Amino acid sequence: MVESLVSMPAPAFPQQDRDAVYRAIEQRRDVRRGFLPTPMPDDLLERILAAAHHAPSVGFMQPWRFILIRDQATRTGVHSLFVQANAEAAAHYAEGQREQYASLKLEGILEAAQNLCVVFDPYAERGHGLGRQTMPETALYSVVCAVQNLWLAARAEGIGVGWVSILDPDRLRTVLAIPSHVVPVAYLCLGYVENFATEPDLERAGWQERTSLSSVLALDRYDQSWQPGKNSR
Amino acid sequence: MVESLVSMPAPAFPQQDRDAVYRAIEQRRDVRRGFLPTPMPDDLLERILAAAHHAPSVGFMQPWRFILIRDQATRTGVHSLFVQANAEAAAHYAEGQREQYASLKLEGILEAAQNLCVVFDPYAERGHGLGRQTMPETALYSVVCAVQNLWLAARAEGIGVGWVSILDPDRLRTVLAIPSHVVPVAYLCLGYVENFATEPDLERAGWQERTSLSSVLALDRYDQSWQPGKNSR
Repeated sequence: MVESLVSMPAPAFPQQDRDAVYRAIEQRRDVRRGFLPTPMPDDLLERILAAAHHAPSVGFMQPWRFILIRDQATRTGVHSLFVQANAEAAAHYAEGQREQYASLKLEGILEAAQNLCVVFDPYAERGHGLGRQTMPETALYSVVCAVQNLWLAARAEGIGVGWVSILDPDRLRTVLAIPSHVVPVAYLCLGYVENFATEPDLERAGWQERTSLSSVLALDRYDQSWQPGKNSR
Repeated sequence: MVESLVSMPAPAFPQQDRDAVYRAIEQRRDVRRGFLPTPMPDDLLERILAAAHHAPSVGFMQPWRFILIRDQATRTGVHSLFVQANAEAAAHYAEGQREQYASLKLEGILEAAQNLCVVFDPYAERGHGLGRQTMPETALYSVVCAVQNLWLAARAEGIGVGWVSILDPDRLRTVLAIPSHVVPVAYLCLGYVENFATEPDLERAGWQERTSLSSVLALDRYDQSWQPGKNSR
């Protein structure tokens, strides 16, 4: 008798575990308000940082670096950078939209119990250049994957994360003593929160709606529509 | 009697659900071998694409676009690009390391049941520019977050994902009819797999080891070490 050699695929997670992963993804929020001053224990912080450290990286280069910021004076310095950059940003909007912009709460730098700056060290010598010759930008992308890992782990732990992109990167380097060759990728506010909103703040505020998946999905070519249930295999 | 107004923090996920999220993060692998030809049902594909579509985006801009590639001729075309780019990459290594490089399996373009190209449309007009004036690169980062969401959802579903960065982006644009202003961010191989390795391929192959978390973590300033259990709050 000839033995069957058909490979069985690796199993999916059990249903409850799959649901938990999707729940972290769907209930993750960019938190700007409602941070509590309660300190986060080091072991909790290290768990979510370890999640970031388990991100994929091209050539297994691991080029991310994390700066955890608890010092109040440092955070006040970063907050000043935000106030300045935000005023400049607001000035670009026409009247009407400018007032709507000004009414949005866009950061929790001083309220969150700590901040975290995630940076990219392009001089990290690990990985021996593997995978980086045609698309060197993938090294930087690894660092963004680390941020997303941390964000999802934090959501599962009940920790809010807010990404502040309204900061001048050069001035941020000065405040945090970041060398000039190192790239600030994400400035995050991190801590316990009163609650997680059911929808993104900008959706609730009427700033922008969620698009449909089908509007961003194509088949085989950029200009060819995906038709649910009608795509050849 | 004065009522207490101390806010209770939003709860963490139950322990089993937290564990599931960490498990997806820790057991996610960059899969290059062992893809099975079994087709993936559309509803499964749409679940993991919806996970990607739930990524954070600056100004809620949602600038990601997905091209699902099932057509065999198209995949053969992309595979040719890989072969060419990989030969050029191999030539950069000195003898000895070059042979080790050549022995690594770095993609599953033809074996996986489908490929997925994730691109960034910088002309996406949603979000009204919010958050993009000081760090415009965060729009592109949103797309990378979408990739990581998809990768983790796929892991929970038992679907392997391999990121191929050894491709010339301009030639890839031509094969997939991607307009010149749109940026290819990630080219992924996607499908059922025989198994998930317990460690990253490059770690097992002796190419590169995992670094310690403490070696990439600083407190308050880039040049100041984190000391577990000894950090002021």
